[in-house]
Amino acid sequence: MTSLAISLGDPAGIGPELIAQAWVRRGLEKLQPFFVVGGSEILAAAAMMRGLDVPVVRVTDPQQAASAFPDGLPVLDLPAMAGSGADPSQASYQPGKPSPDGARLAFASLRHATQLAKEGKATAVVTAPVAKSELAKVGFKYPGQTEFLAASCNIAAENAVMMLAGPQLRTVPLTVHCALSEVASLLSVNLIRRRARITADALTRDFGIISPRLAVAGLNPHAGENGQFGDEEIRIIAPAIAALREDGIDATGPHPADAMFAPHSRQKYDVALAMYHDQALIPLKALDFDSGVNVTLGLPIIRTSPDHGTAFDIAGTGKADAGAMIAAIRMAGECAARRGQ
Amino acid sequence: MTSLAISLGDPAGIGPELIAQAWVRRGLEKLQPFFVVGGSEILAAAAMMRGLDVPVVRVTDPQQAASAFPDGLPVLDLPAMAGSGADPSQASYQPGKPSPDGARLAFASLRHATQLAKEGKATAVVTAPVAKSELAKVGFKYPGQTEFLAASCNIAAENAVMMLAGPQLRTVPLTVHCALSEVASLLSVNLIRRRARITADALTRDFGIISPRLAVAGLNPHAGENGQFGDEEIRIIAPAIAALREDGIDATGPHPADAMFAPHSRQKYDVALAMYHDQALIPLKALDFDSGVNVTLGLPIIRTSPDHGTAFDIAGTGKADAGAMIAAIRMAGECAARRGQ
Repeated sequence: MTSLAISLGDPAGIGPELIAQAWVRRGLEKLQPFFVVGGSEILAAAAMMRGLDVPVVRVTDPQQAASAFPDGLPVLDLPAMAGSGADPSQASYQPGKPSPDGARLAFASLRHATQLAKEGKATAVVTAPVAKSELAKVGFKYPGQTEFLAASCNIAAENAVMMLAGPQLRTVPLTVHCALSEVASLLSVNLIRRRARITADALTRDFGIISPRLAVAGLNPHAGENGQFGDEEIRIIAPAIAALREDGIDATGPHPADAMFAPHSRQKYDVALAMYHDQALIPLKALDFDSGVNVTLGLPIIRTSPDHGTAFDIAGTGKADAGAMIAAIRMAGECAARRGQ
Repeated sequence: MTSLAISLGDPAGIGPELIAQAWVRRGLEKLQPFFVVGGSEILAAAAMMRGLDVPVVRVTDPQQAASAFPDGLPVLDLPAMAGSGADPSQASYQPGKPSPDGARLAFASLRHATQLAKEGKATAVVTAPVAKSELAKVGFKYPGQTEFLAASCNIAAENAVMMLAGPQLRTVPLTVHCALSEVASLLSVNLIRRRARITADALTRDFGIISPRLAVAGLNPHAGENGQFGDEEIRIIAPAIAALREDGIDATGPHPADAMFAPHSRQKYDVALAMYHDQALIPLKALDFDSGVNVTLGLPIIRTSPDHGTAFDIAGTGKADAGAMIAAIRMAGECAARRGQ
């Protein structure tokens, strides 16, 4: 039986302790079997510091994980990686104190977990949080883990779509890390169509929604109120929606962004397509702060991640909430089951 | 005893029926006595269509309202207004069908309610929703009711500050009805300082918060992440916050907008200052859709309003939720009590 692979994340962050916490709650939360890629000693130390009784079980083959999972947290030893600069034995558990060795270990874990998923030796990858600035210091040339995963799968970065999913809302920001004043210039009919289609396909394949309902937000207040405050709805968003509908996709909008996240509005769609980062993230975090999952759509492999960072400031204190990590593991398991993996 | 004045709003909208509903729930909701300015026959018809037993009591002096309130909905007859073009007897109750006569009545009611508050004959004004496009047709020269109220009180429109308040969040959008791409160019240190100060003063005077905590949002994702995505935080927002702190105001930020509306973050401030319309309205409506109140800060009189429109599409059907109207009436009463009115 094949299991989920979890990448360790930065050893100085909250990733290792949250993985250990998730394993403790595996039965209560009905989690599919998973294993961690690398960092067995770090995981044991993180669990101990959090006061958790977690027997770490080292495995040499991902296929051993499922049978080990009921009695211990399976950790797959990382192969010695010549030329990667990663020597897993050098990294130690120092919560809140990131180091180059830790960043190298995080990178090696991510790379190997991705490889296992590509080879079918893991049903999905769940990535624990990394610090981009630390990774950059050890030669990681990607803006984030998502771009690394896309490149590993030979998918263009613009076709790897980030979806945030919580119990009350799924949302896709169509632009992400740019100044707010640049958003309008980055939107195009093609961008909206392409990402909407990737989203609709993934909701069907991985989330079991046969005919997904996509609600597309306007950019401007009141969706521009017929061009009174900005014309992007008229020039770009409405034509994109019309094209999507011609393609047979159940897209509606442009909706006024303030109204579309209200409780009764959220019942009317399966995913909200937002025009910019905060339009998607504000309602998600207001509603589902401790349980938001970041899912990468459009990849040949399944990838989820808790929607939070390394939180170096609280690592090792036991304060970090494992809700999002558990939700990410559960969602990865559910998506894998739908793909028949 | 002086009561709250409620302006009728557009007779074809949901205002009249929500006022009637609020009166029915006056005891349960512990509402201070109020009276409606004009529209006695419209209110009676709206109550009947909603299936409510509401005896309308016509009064000729606002001072009569408090004693009439327990047994009926007090309605102050509008004086014949020479030259206003408003003949209240001409407007009729046709839910969903706005008319020039109805718009004239809405305008006359708003004007008279405001006048009563200015003269101290009402403790506050609660405005029911109007249709700006209908008002414009009958000579109303203001973008909205707020600007009319400011002008009536000889306050510059830019010093009348809109605050949205629900049970879970108070928020002030510093810019409102403009294209998203124009927001950055409208922000300035002076704008933020001036409106923050008006907000802080009002929270103390009308909301009883001695030392209000103001959380100021960033404009860009992650509040710009040290200038990586936009520099408005560095050039404008942080200097404004520093100046406010020098003035003795407890202002913090710029905060990443997605994180600041999460549940644990909301505990740390009394009001969130947002840089644009949807940054304020998305979290408010996601959290408090049916109970959001629009309060105008910076006026010599107290003014609240339910944070929704006329909803012509559901007027007369009984579907409209009275939560926001009731919350607006309650808040106006509480603010008036704090001012000792």
